[in-house]
Amino acid sequence: MSKEITSREQDYAQWYNDLVIKGSLADYSAVRGCMVIKPYGFALWENMRDQLDKRFKETGHVNAYFPLFIPKSFLSKEAAHVEGFAKECAVVTHYRLKNDPNGGGVIVDPEAKLEEELIVRPTSETIIWNTYKTWIQSYRDLPLLINQWANVVRWEMRTRLFLRTAEFLWQEGHTAHATSGEAVAEARQMLDVYAEFVEEWMALPVIKGIKSESERFAGAVDTYCIEALMQDGKALQAGTSHFLGQNFAKAFDVKFSDKDNKLDYVWATSWGVSTRLVGALVMAHSDDEGLILPPKIAPLQAVIVPIYKGEEKKDLLNAKGKELAGQLKAAGIRVKFDDNDNSRPGWKFAEYEMKGVPVRIALGLRDIENNSVEMARRDTKEKSSVSMDGLSGTVSAMLDTIQRAMYDKALAYRQQHITRVDDWAEFERLLDEKGGFFSAHWDGTAATEDAIKEKTKATIRCIPLDNPAEEGKCILTGKPSSQRVLFARAY
Amino acid sequence: MSKEITSREQDYAQWYNDLVIKGSLADYSAVRGCMVIKPYGFALWENMRDQLDKRFKETGHVNAYFPLFIPKSFLSKEAAHVEGFAKECAVVTHYRLKNDPNGGGVIVDPEAKLEEELIVRPTSETIIWNTYKTWIQSYRDLPLLINQWANVVRWEMRTRLFLRTAEFLWQEGHTAHATSGEAVAEARQMLDVYAEFVEEWMALPVIKGIKSESERFAGAVDTYCIEALMQDGKALQAGTSHFLGQNFAKAFDVKFSDKDNKLDYVWATSWGVSTRLVGALVMAHSDDEGLILPPKIAPLQAVIVPIYKGEEKKDLLNAKGKELAGQLKAAGIRVKFDDNDNSRPGWKFAEYEMKGVPVRIALGLRDIENNSVEMARRDTKEKSSVSMDGLSGTVSAMLDTIQRAMYDKALAYRQQHITRVDDWAEFERLLDEKGGFFSAHWDGTAATEDAIKEKTKATIRCIPLDNPAEEGKCILTGKPSSQRVLFARAY
Repeated sequence: MSKEITSREQDYAQWYNDLVIKGSLADYSAVRGCMVIKPYGFALWENMRDQLDKRFKETGHVNAYFPLFIPKSFLSKEAAHVEGFAKECAVVTHYRLKNDPNGGGVIVDPEAKLEEELIVRPTSETIIWNTYKTWIQSYRDLPLLINQWANVVRWEMRTRLFLRTAEFLWQEGHTAHATSGEAVAEARQMLDVYAEFVEEWMALPVIKGIKSESERFAGAVDTYCIEALMQDGKALQAGTSHFLGQNFAKAFDVKFSDKDNKLDYVWATSWGVSTRLVGALVMAHSDDEGLILPPKIAPLQAVIVPIYKGEEKKDLLNAKGKELAGQLKAAGIRVKFDDNDNSRPGWKFAEYEMKGVPVRIALGLRDIENNSVEMARRDTKEKSSVSMDGLSGTVSAMLDTIQRAMYDKALAYRQQHITRVDDWAEFERLLDEKGGFFSAHWDGTAATEDAIKEKTKATIRCIPLDNPAEEGKCILTGKPSSQRVLFARAY
Repeated sequence: MSKEITSREQDYAQWYNDLVIKGSLADYSAVRGCMVIKPYGFALWENMRDQLDKRFKETGHVNAYFPLFIPKSFLSKEAAHVEGFAKECAVVTHYRLKNDPNGGGVIVDPEAKLEEELIVRPTSETIIWNTYKTWIQSYRDLPLLINQWANVVRWEMRTRLFLRTAEFLWQEGHTAHATSGEAVAEARQMLDVYAEFVEEWMALPVIKGIKSESERFAGAVDTYCIEALMQDGKALQAGTSHFLGQNFAKAFDVKFSDKDNKLDYVWATSWGVSTRLVGALVMAHSDDEGLILPPKIAPLQAVIVPIYKGEEKKDLLNAKGKELAGQLKAAGIRVKFDDNDNSRPGWKFAEYEMKGVPVRIALGLRDIENNSVEMARRDTKEKSSVSMDGLSGTVSAMLDTIQRAMYDKALAYRQQHITRVDDWAEFERLLDEKGGFFSAHWDGTAATEDAIKEKTKATIRCIPLDNPAEEGKCILTGKPSSQRVLFARAY
């Protein structure tokens, strides 16, 4: 099984695709750029979604649902939004099919043309702020803290499973506030919520920062982001949180009267993470034998594989396996006892390695005699013989250990891949040879950022939130700079 | 507040709309036929969804996600599906916008025309069976028990909030089996799951039955359904479960090899319920003062309203209110202590009546002296003074009582509205005067069913699953009939 995976060294992009397909996370579909999220991949997304949803609710947000379609004219209302936002959208122009009079199945009914085309939402600021106009009159209606779980469509030309697909699943928070300060605090709070989730649950360290103007969301005043590092040294934006100022309120004329009955435009944020996170998870942790999933969000945390010797004492093995699985389940561990007769233990081992199940337990007749089992951890592949007594405690502890070890490993890798650089030639060389983040001075202009991107394909991933002031010279132009920023090549 | 609701007697349809809008369940949107599901309505749907999802998983199903778009040609592959299915679909023809060179915002880029149009899924049998083709080879791959939570679009000409909207949310189960018997058992099992959920959680009795040929899902061999009765005597189809035979397997060439290596087409089911259930809930239980929600799925089960006497001992009331709310919450009750200063108790009472909160607790200074509170139940509006001691137990018991009473009331209404009728004139008269279900003989032909629908607007809702055989004469044609079927006017 593992033979079929391309190694990272051989072809990193192909390795990633192999993992997604052969690890049963997703599949290509008949529709260009759209994927099928398979049950195993969807269970992973469900675990991520449920955790995030819990945190959103704990911070006072409620869920709602807004239309899939956006009238075309809405997209023109916020000037920066329409200028900056990608125009690659799915456009609905007709609302009816009819039987082909020539017998060729169905055709689009030319008489059922919409007066105004509808856009399948690429993001929902416009339709939501058009709605908020009717919901907000007074400061008493604020803050409005709403989130939506939805599918969105961006007609990307080059797609990759999970990382960039035409349709993807995400959540988008859209909040409305009475003051600028409150809205900024909200945007920052949600960035913290994302960072904490990605670090603690996905075992993936992130850098919190703010985007440069060129990388900012179209329509935002400030875009905050969390950036993670993949094993090939490329960065991946794992989530964004935007302070939108009064831009959308002005575009959709959303005003509120304050306590003194004075009218003002409402302040806004929006923030989102998507199924892209699944791609980040795969890329950050896995190896050449398959996925390595963090225990906290792994759909299956442990698997018990019986080692049959033909038909000998099969009943005994099955009874013991079920008993142990029952114990683990009772302790809250997501466990499966795999008594499938159709495949051999070796095949099963490879399959669960491929799927990244954190703990594998092998159970043979001799183990029963010895009151022990063989426990293997997926991340390091270490095996140990452990007692059946208190097995659920042993496995729980091991799951914690793996979760921590995965984070520590990813953190160490990232620490080794943040390079301070002050020389252009070295910057170019290390981008190719080492990869990762480069902390370098930049003169603060979009022109220089563009030039650097043009020359190296590296972009400013973010200006870290805890960035110290430091006088220096721009790595490209030599012009004065007041701080370092983080460059990287990115997904 | 309650004054603003149109009464049922005055205008039942307007009463329903008033409840949905003023009860904060949903709102109209800028897109024709699409609604915004507001946070309170969405919380209700989330509770329904979570319960259903739990039952799907308990019966061995897993969730996945398939593309929003379906290539137009797919819809022509299953002959009955394309013939029978409504052609009112949203059609995507282009994939890019561009800035209007004349400065009028954005326009559709005529050069970005899709080679083949994409249909926004009205249901997903075709795209899913096209995928199953690659997933199913052997009997070992079966059964495949997959569910999807998704949005779908049917371009209905006349829409009503929740009951019939262009876009709606639903779940669609799509299963694949090795034998016909297994697939039929699955379709029946899911009908039972639906019926049990609607009856026990939504407090709404349903009749399980099978559809006549005319009302069958396009592409199904048999359509099972649950039918509920609304307060105006009209029936509402609350869920359907289809035995699809080998129709879609044949259309998409999905075969499996059995244990003897013989190839055969796969057997299928599909089944779904939607946000329409929210509409059913509203219509079945509410009254002229607002919503009445069954405790088990009410977003808020109890509310505590303090009765302030100006500023006097406000702190004491607030402290006591919070303490009681804490007790109820600890007992698992979804409770809110409403200490909002901006509105008076009378306004709050009307607001929570409107929103259908099952139990309202009023807390005044004299109550504190007496160690009691005033508890009012929403369904009957009965009030009683109850002790503060053991309040959470009292409220829990009251929630159970209300849940049962709501079901019993709806059941009694339905029992009174199943009328056996053998005379055409009486049938026509009672349809107008009494409404409800009519158990009548039918000659079994689609022509007669059509004629009856034409004359009365009544359709065959279902042939009940437990229907006894009974010789008789068709109520319209007088031709021989072997059983009664249930007629009704329906949503």
